[in-house]
Order: sequence, then structure tokens, then C-alpha cells
Amino acid sequence: MQLLKDRILKDGVIKEGHILKVDSFLNHQMDIKLINEIGKEFKKRFSDANITKILTIEASGIGIACIAAQYFDVPVVFAKKSQSINLDSDMYTSKITSYTHQRTYDVILAKKFLSSDDHVLIIDDFLANGCALKGLIEIIKQAGAALEGAGIVIEKGFQQGGNILRKEGVRVESLAIIDSIDNNSIIFR
Amino acid sequence: MQLLKDRILKDGVIKEGHILKVDSFLNHQMDIKLINEIGKEFKKRFSDANITKILTIEASGIGIACIAAQYFDVPVVFAKKSQSINLDSDMYTSKITSYTHQRTYDVILAKKFLSSDDHVLIIDDFLANGCALKGLIEIIKQAGAALEGAGIVIEKGFQQGGNILRKEGVRVESLAIIDSIDNNSIIFR
Repeated sequence: MQLLKDRILKDGVIKEGHILKVDSFLNHQMDIKLINEIGKEFKKRFSDANITKILTIEASGIGIACIAAQYFDVPVVFAKKSQSINLDSDMYTSKITSYTHQRTYDVILAKKFLSSDDHVLIIDDFLANGCALKGLIEIIKQAGAALEGAGIVIEKGFQQGGNILRKEGVRVESLAIIDSIDNNSIIFR
Repeated sequence: MQLLKDRILKDGVIKEGHILKVDSFLNHQMDIKLINEIGKEFKKRFSDANITKILTIEASGIGIACIAAQYFDVPVVFAKKSQSINLDSDMYTSKITSYTHQRTYDVILAKKFLSSDDHVLIIDDFLANGCALKGLIEIIKQAGAALEGAGIVIEKGFQQGGNILRKEGVRVESLAIIDSIDNNSIIFR
């Protein structure tokens, strides 16, 4: 998606440890016009799939998933990262390890919001080692729902999450795949 | 907002401790059509204000803020609940205590995303004791920005946050104010 790649080149900031900061438009401040175009692009790429629900994980995936959901005309459900006293005991659960936050989370989703009737599109802002995606796929398996695919805004192609998941047969559609951010320059696939 | 009140009566669940669960349409599963109507209503109520930025806090406020932002044609910034290695050191910070999670969070926002030129609308899903709102207002004060008001989906009118903030001169627009959820029935103001 050229509009997104241009924006990454313009406003993305490379930090030590292969960290790409896109917090001026994607995951701290959010450019809603750009995210609207991202939502349209996900719909275009998954127009052949019969999606009934969009699944994401808090926090930065939620806004993107909600904007995209308008084009799919389906509800969003978001997995939560820790047990809350405000939630049902009847939960799907998995674990993910966050590269950014260097910790392991319990991920939970109320069972009543995902069933074997559902055809699920996962949406998230980043795909790197794939841990978050694997955690969400585990929840979809527990529900007996059908995984239609994953729509990712930015994939770090130099980490292995995307490759591994595609080999396992998961349909991963990433709007920008970065193959290298060495030497302070960004190279797209 | 009658559509919202009707939905709360239909799908809201009252739990012990004056907890109202609206997780089937607002803050775990999200009914995007309803949230679109909520976004329009916020725009209607704040149509006289010259908003330049919408501020919310992760996680459940983000989706509502993003959908609403489409009607204001402004970016969303969301405050984060804990320090991340992926964030700048140059942050506005405040503290909030979550009633639901029974803990105190550090709340942070990168300084570069809020300035004294901004006119800010806060959007959040719930207002009860007002701690989250006060934390966000503190961040707006640190930025020297103008607080135009707060758009709240559901206010628990039997808790004091809304009353206190209105007395302090904050423009609080709540789309549904609940005065009582005793005896397993919901009474709106």
C-alpha cells in the first residue's frame, strides 16, 4: 500500500534494536484519514472472504480494527491483556510475549463473543515474531471458529512471524512489509 | 441518546458492586454501527467547539474515539497506562486509579502530540468517580492546551465524578446518565 509506505518513510523513526516508531500516525497519535484508507485496503484484500467478526488485541489494534470494521459491516471483539474483575469467568485464554514490553501477558476473550459459527479476520498494527498473532489464533481455535486471515498494517519481514504463519497456511495480508531497517534506512519487500 | 439507553436496557447486565456490564456492544465486543451513531452524537453536541484533537485513554476508549474522530476530522491521541521502552522519554504524566481494576496506573502521553495550540475533546466510554478524566485533564493542563470538554458514553450519575467536574467548569456531555442501578433495574436521569 503505497500511501502507507510513503508515510512510513516520511514519519517513521528508526530506534536502536530494530524498533520502528510510527507513533505519530498509527499507534499513539492516530491519523484517522490514513487509517480509513487502511480499512478500505483490508476490505479490498479480503473481499472474497465471508467475515463475520474482526478480532484484535488491546490497545493499539482497537482503533484500526474499528475503522476497518465499518467496511466489513461486522462487530469487533478485542482480546484483553489481563484478568479484570469486571469480566466473566467464562473465557478463552492464551499467552503472548511482547517484544516491545519484554513481558508475557495472559490474553483473554469472553467465550460468548466468539463461536464455531464465526469466520474471523484478525487485525493488528504490527507483526514481528508473531507471538500476538499466535495467541489470537489459539483463541480462535478454542472457539472452533474459522480463521479467514490476518490483516497487518506493518510487518517486520526480517523477523520470522509472517513467514512461519504463512507456511502454516495462515493467510497473512500485510500492507507494508519491511525487509530491513539497518543503516538507518527502510527497505520494503 | 435514546438509541444508547434502549441498548443499555436491552443488553446491559448489572453485577454486584454497582457494576454495569456493557461488554456485548461497547467495551469488549463493539457494535460499530451503534458507535458510529455515538460518534455523530458527540459531533452534534460539540458542533460549536473548535476541536483540533481528540484525547482518550487505552484501551476501551480508543475505538470510540477513532470512530468519533471521523466526524470531527481531527487526529486521535491516546494516553497509555504504563511506561514502554518503545516510547520517548519526553512525556506528560499523571496518575489514575481504576475502580474496575483496583489499581493505580501511571498515564503517559508524548509531549510532541499535544501543545498549547490544541483544543481538546476528551472521549471515554465510562465516567464514574472521574479519576481517568482528571488524569487526562492534568495532561491537557501540562500541555497548556485548551480543554473544550469531555464526551462520555455512559456516566454513573450515582458516583460523583461528573458532578464534581461540572462544578469545576468542565463541559461534560454524557450520552446516558444512570442515576441508579439498585434492585437490578436501571434508572436514567
